[in-house]
Amino acid sequence: MKRSERIVAMTHHFKENPNQMISLPYFVETFQSAKSSISEDIDIIDHMFHTLGIGRLQTTAGASGGVRYLPDYSKDNGSEFISELIELLEDPKRILPGGYIYMSDLLGDLNKVRTMGKIFSAAFKELEVDYVVTVATKGIPLAYAIAEVLNVPVVIIRRDPKVTEGSTVSINYVSGSSRKIQTMVLAKRSIKEGANVLLVDDFMKAGGTIEGMISLMKEFDATVKGIGVLAEAEDEEEDLRIDDYVSLVKIQEVDERAGTINISKGNYFY
Amino acid sequence: MKRSERIVAMTHHFKENPNQMISLPYFVETFQSAKSSISEDIDIIDHMFHTLGIGRLQTTAGASGGVRYLPDYSKDNGSEFISELIELLEDPKRILPGGYIYMSDLLGDLNKVRTMGKIFSAAFKELEVDYVVTVATKGIPLAYAIAEVLNVPVVIIRRDPKVTEGSTVSINYVSGSSRKIQTMVLAKRSIKEGANVLLVDDFMKAGGTIEGMISLMKEFDATVKGIGVLAEAEDEEEDLRIDDYVSLVKIQEVDERAGTINISKGNYFY
Repeated sequence: MKRSERIVAMTHHFKENPNQMISLPYFVETFQSAKSSISEDIDIIDHMFHTLGIGRLQTTAGASGGVRYLPDYSKDNGSEFISELIELLEDPKRILPGGYIYMSDLLGDLNKVRTMGKIFSAAFKELEVDYVVTVATKGIPLAYAIAEVLNVPVVIIRRDPKVTEGSTVSINYVSGSSRKIQTMVLAKRSIKEGANVLLVDDFMKAGGTIEGMISLMKEFDATVKGIGVLAEAEDEEEDLRIDDYVSLVKIQEVDERAGTINISKGNYFY
Repeated sequence: MKRSERIVAMTHHFKENPNQMISLPYFVETFQSAKSSISEDIDIIDHMFHTLGIGRLQTTAGASGGVRYLPDYSKDNGSEFISELIELLEDPKRILPGGYIYMSDLLGDLNKVRTMGKIFSAAFKELEVDYVVTVATKGIPLAYAIAEVLNVPVVIIRRDPKVTEGSTVSINYVSGSSRKIQTMVLAKRSIKEGANVLLVDDFMKAGGTIEGMISLMKEFDATVKGIGVLAEAEDEEEDLRIDDYVSLVKIQEVDERAGTINISKGNYFY
């Protein structure tokens, strides 16, 4: 097989299997090519991935050795994307009664969600988590976009128990903004004991939901290694109860009467 | 830039932007290479994508011309994947009280969900839909995996209205299996009028939920072009109310006492 053909197939393979160790003999057999040729292919792909700002190929020597694609997303690229996102979010038409902002269309846009996932994955790439955990509904696409890059499963906490989940663990918590008692439910078999998890949600105000997720994770003996929220907003009445998290945007002010929204970049960029 | 380097960058670009027309001058400028070289690169990539069974590059001549990656997933590859999935699903440990099957772990596995998305996208590639529509919660990952390939947005119907959605349209419907009256809610601004949609869900028994989705789509003047469900099961008490859909697996029998599950391939493979 020609080098250019091998490079198409290998680029495809790395992009489909991020963070996964692939042995060199696998490529040698698949393409019926010499190990030295495969190594040169890997150097070319690594160089281009670096140039494109999408990560590196990491080669490990030895018996259990191989090559692994470690995706990345530069802070500069991330910052540029978030600037464009803020422009879209500051459209006054997005203001909803109560001073909320309509974001569902952006969370339904695959290209945007996948880019958010790449930014978060770059932020959390050192964590070595076993699961990305989110709570239904809006955080789900974000969780999948992150898990795709980190190459780990997604676990979805529900608001209501469902018969198709089997036995569950549930907790009650007080939502920060509405002060209502709410419930979170998670199937017992969804997380292995002693797991490391990354918590993800679309929006955080007083932090009640994230706090609920943290309590629920304790029930599973899971360690919360990181917390990511797409948008954070200040709560006028209550201080934020969570102190260590990564946000991509911060909603500074929504003025319903004047029809203005003021959004800045999240803490990841400062 | 060398051919092999260009090919890495172009393969990456096509895979990130399926079903999107890219003008040849874009590549000519980006890589500072002759149009004839770019055309040869495209031929090589097209040939390898075809060999890998992941689709073709379609080149269009003329002023608005360019090249577009049309992803595909062969029925043979799909069938092989589904056989493996059935083996996992037939594990007696998955049986839940009431004869349900635990599937959340499989729907949380990115590699599996993305492959399901590729199979569905291949099944629906001719439809030219504007949105993939699903209902919270379990259909969401599947919907995103399909939308990623079809390059269209995802719209999520909720079970409960939420203040962050703005004004909504809601309908009540009778769930086939539980005979309970349930509600579906969708934000008014989520779908443009006259849209073509693909409905997606993880599970279908009597078809009540899909029927509810169809009713809701009528309220938005949307045309349902296709319906995809991961798993279908027969309802002993009620006939299926939906007749035109694609399923990947069919749950034939779950025997709680004997601890056996019998699953066959869905109608897509027959």
